[in-house]
Amino acid sequence: MKDLAISVGLKIKAKRKEMGVSQDKLALLADIDRSYVGRIERGEVNITLEKLYEIADVLECDAKYLLP
Amino acid sequence: MKDLAISVGLKIKAKRKEMGVSQDKLALLADIDRSYVGRIERGEVNITLEKLYEIADVLECDAKYLLP
Repeated sequence: MKDLAISVGLKIKAKRKEMGVSQDKLALLADIDRSYVGRIERGEVNITLEKLYEIADVLECDAKYLLP
Repeated sequence: MKDLAISVGLKIKAKRKEMGVSQDKLALLADIDRSYVGRIERGEVNITLEKLYEIADVLECDAKYLLP
């Protein structure tokens, strides 16, 4: 399931850049540690649904949009 | 975010019943503890994306279908 984390990480990174949001700002607004945002985007961690929804909320998109 | 877990739990339960899969069988096939399946369906736990995809795989549906 590592492919899943990588796909989601790439989608989050792309959407974050599209929205002009820095990793620092995403971390702050989604209440995630800054280094953890990097790990999510690199697909190194298996996030929870709750975290996915918090990130989607900050990036103003549907959580489903961030899934492969 | 408790509403999220409850919504997802209800969707998983409905899809599981529609597919005629018992909690025991879902637990076995998705490699989850039997009691944990009950907790997921009652919205008591915040599952990971990986677990969502494993459950969707067993229930032969798109993981997005199980999201609110």
